[in-house]
Amino acid sequence: MSSGVTLAVDCMGGDHGPSVTVPAVLHFLEANPDVRCILVGLKEPLERELGRAASAARQRVIVHPASEVVAMDEAPALAIKRKKDSSMRVAIDLVKDGSAHAAVSAGNTGALMGMAHFVLRTLPGIDRPALVALMPTVTGHCYLLDLGASPDCTAENLRQFAVMGSTLVACVEHRDRPTVGLLNIGSEAIKGNAVVKQAGELLRESALNFVGNIEGDGIFWSRTDVIVSDGFVGNVVLKSVEGLAKMFRHNLSAEFKRGPIGWIGALFAWPALAKFRKRFDPRHYNGAMLIGLRGLVVKSHGSADATSFASALARAAVLVRTDVLQRISAGLAPREEPIAR
Amino acid sequence: MSSGVTLAVDCMGGDHGPSVTVPAVLHFLEANPDVRCILVGLKEPLERELGRAASAARQRVIVHPASEVVAMDEAPALAIKRKKDSSMRVAIDLVKDGSAHAAVSAGNTGALMGMAHFVLRTLPGIDRPALVALMPTVTGHCYLLDLGASPDCTAENLRQFAVMGSTLVACVEHRDRPTVGLLNIGSEAIKGNAVVKQAGELLRESALNFVGNIEGDGIFWSRTDVIVSDGFVGNVVLKSVEGLAKMFRHNLSAEFKRGPIGWIGALFAWPALAKFRKRFDPRHYNGAMLIGLRGLVVKSHGSADATSFASALARAAVLVRTDVLQRISAGLAPREEPIAR
Repeated sequence: MSSGVTLAVDCMGGDHGPSVTVPAVLHFLEANPDVRCILVGLKEPLERELGRAASAARQRVIVHPASEVVAMDEAPALAIKRKKDSSMRVAIDLVKDGSAHAAVSAGNTGALMGMAHFVLRTLPGIDRPALVALMPTVTGHCYLLDLGASPDCTAENLRQFAVMGSTLVACVEHRDRPTVGLLNIGSEAIKGNAVVKQAGELLRESALNFVGNIEGDGIFWSRTDVIVSDGFVGNVVLKSVEGLAKMFRHNLSAEFKRGPIGWIGALFAWPALAKFRKRFDPRHYNGAMLIGLRGLVVKSHGSADATSFASALARAAVLVRTDVLQRISAGLAPREEPIAR
Repeated sequence: MSSGVTLAVDCMGGDHGPSVTVPAVLHFLEANPDVRCILVGLKEPLERELGRAASAARQRVIVHPASEVVAMDEAPALAIKRKKDSSMRVAIDLVKDGSAHAAVSAGNTGALMGMAHFVLRTLPGIDRPALVALMPTVTGHCYLLDLGASPDCTAENLRQFAVMGSTLVACVEHRDRPTVGLLNIGSEAIKGNAVVKQAGELLRESALNFVGNIEGDGIFWSRTDVIVSDGFVGNVVLKSVEGLAKMFRHNLSAEFKRGPIGWIGALFAWPALAKFRKRFDPRHYNGAMLIGLRGLVVKSHGSADATSFASALARAAVLVRTDVLQRISAGLAPREEPIAR
């Protein structure tokens, strides 16, 4: 690979496919001159979308054909076994063989995580990968992991997630010693289920900047940089808060649409509501990072629009530019601690 | 006990104590002529609060003195062991000895759940109690359990929660066969951690109206009546959505307070926002029900105001009026299935 960042983009994934992914790539490349993208997918729709765009960034795009597509509702196990020339698989293979620094996909989550695990394998010292995402908080954002890559976890798995999460945040946020919390049902050390209690012990003994247990509301209010949980809890929490946020938007908008006073209210309230929406726009938080493997993969929301998909591309580029993979590996190898102090 | 409902109220619990609990009781009794309340707590502050109120409901109030108070931050294990004449313990003892149908407390959650379990014991056929609460949904509300009474659960525990939850909803919502879902990380049966997968099997074999897995967003969007999870996941989810809702209120109000246009916006938007707030007012959802024990206990939020504490009293009264305890016991005894069809 030449200097700069090379991303392998599964252009067929997501609810919209190339009509969203290709414009998102070109728009993203225009603002990021150090990045090149390998667009993976069915040749004809990719070239059609590229033909529509008159972008100077076109010269930093390579089309890499793939003959298959993993459907959004396809059984992950079957996709992993059979779809070896799918756009998703080929994008991951390009990371494996060193042609790209990271893969980005809005495709089938289960298939993406399974394929990435199968093809890339875990780093030495890491037993299971973790999916990390940013969550908006009252003062900014925090990093929550795992969001579903590893639903069954031991205490040692959670400790490894904490080490990886701490290193990730040290890299991408240029933070010296990120604070790390353990998602739990009370603040006292004796709280929690058996695995979480044991994980608390491991974290208290570790060299991490461990701040103790964080309860559910602490995700948004505790100002902790990294919050660790198993993939079952993390996934349920992520989807619960997404579901609640969607319900709030739905019901607030329904109230404003109720009769002429509601419409006038909406008109006058618009500037404040717009700022509020912008602050919590899920599109800015798009791009969950799969870490713990011998290569980087970023998962975009399946329903992503071009703005949202570009956020996922940006997330992948930041991981590459800040050497996250190397720093996680280096931190794990000698003493299984993060290198950032 | 005479006919009607008798509630034992721990008047010392919560952040505000008798200044909130006593007015809430009197206000609640005025609207509920079939209910009597035994107010448990330190004699002097209770009688002072009662002396202030000129309520006709005063005659349906008995003061039952207790010499101790469990502090909100007290270690539950110590409170259970030592505070045998605390208002919380005495209120539960009144349920145990048949003087009251249910106990209501806004006190220390861990101490309340531990004391209730210790004093009342589980019903035959039930290994662990569960804390149930109503969650607002896009079309109404659902019942989520367990919210923290039993953080470590087996598949059989989850099955028992499903049976109890189904019976509870059949009783209080007069529903024939409530739908029951299993909180999980995907809709397919193969999804989840080991315990949840096994619980899915038990539920599919059961006579319950089991609709399958519910993902986090499905709490608000799936229209399922009863959603089952272990107490760890349920507690983290409950507190996460509470934390997110609080952050939304905080940030929306901050946007409206930013400069004169924000204030004007707030003025015009007020009717819609007020309806929205009313719809999701956590005070209307106050009162988590501890079920699975040989007596009923309702837990109010510690920060409850009088309106909110009255919701918890109302919840307790409904459980008694609809014979929830007897119907859960009857449903469990012969075939371990809910009696409501």
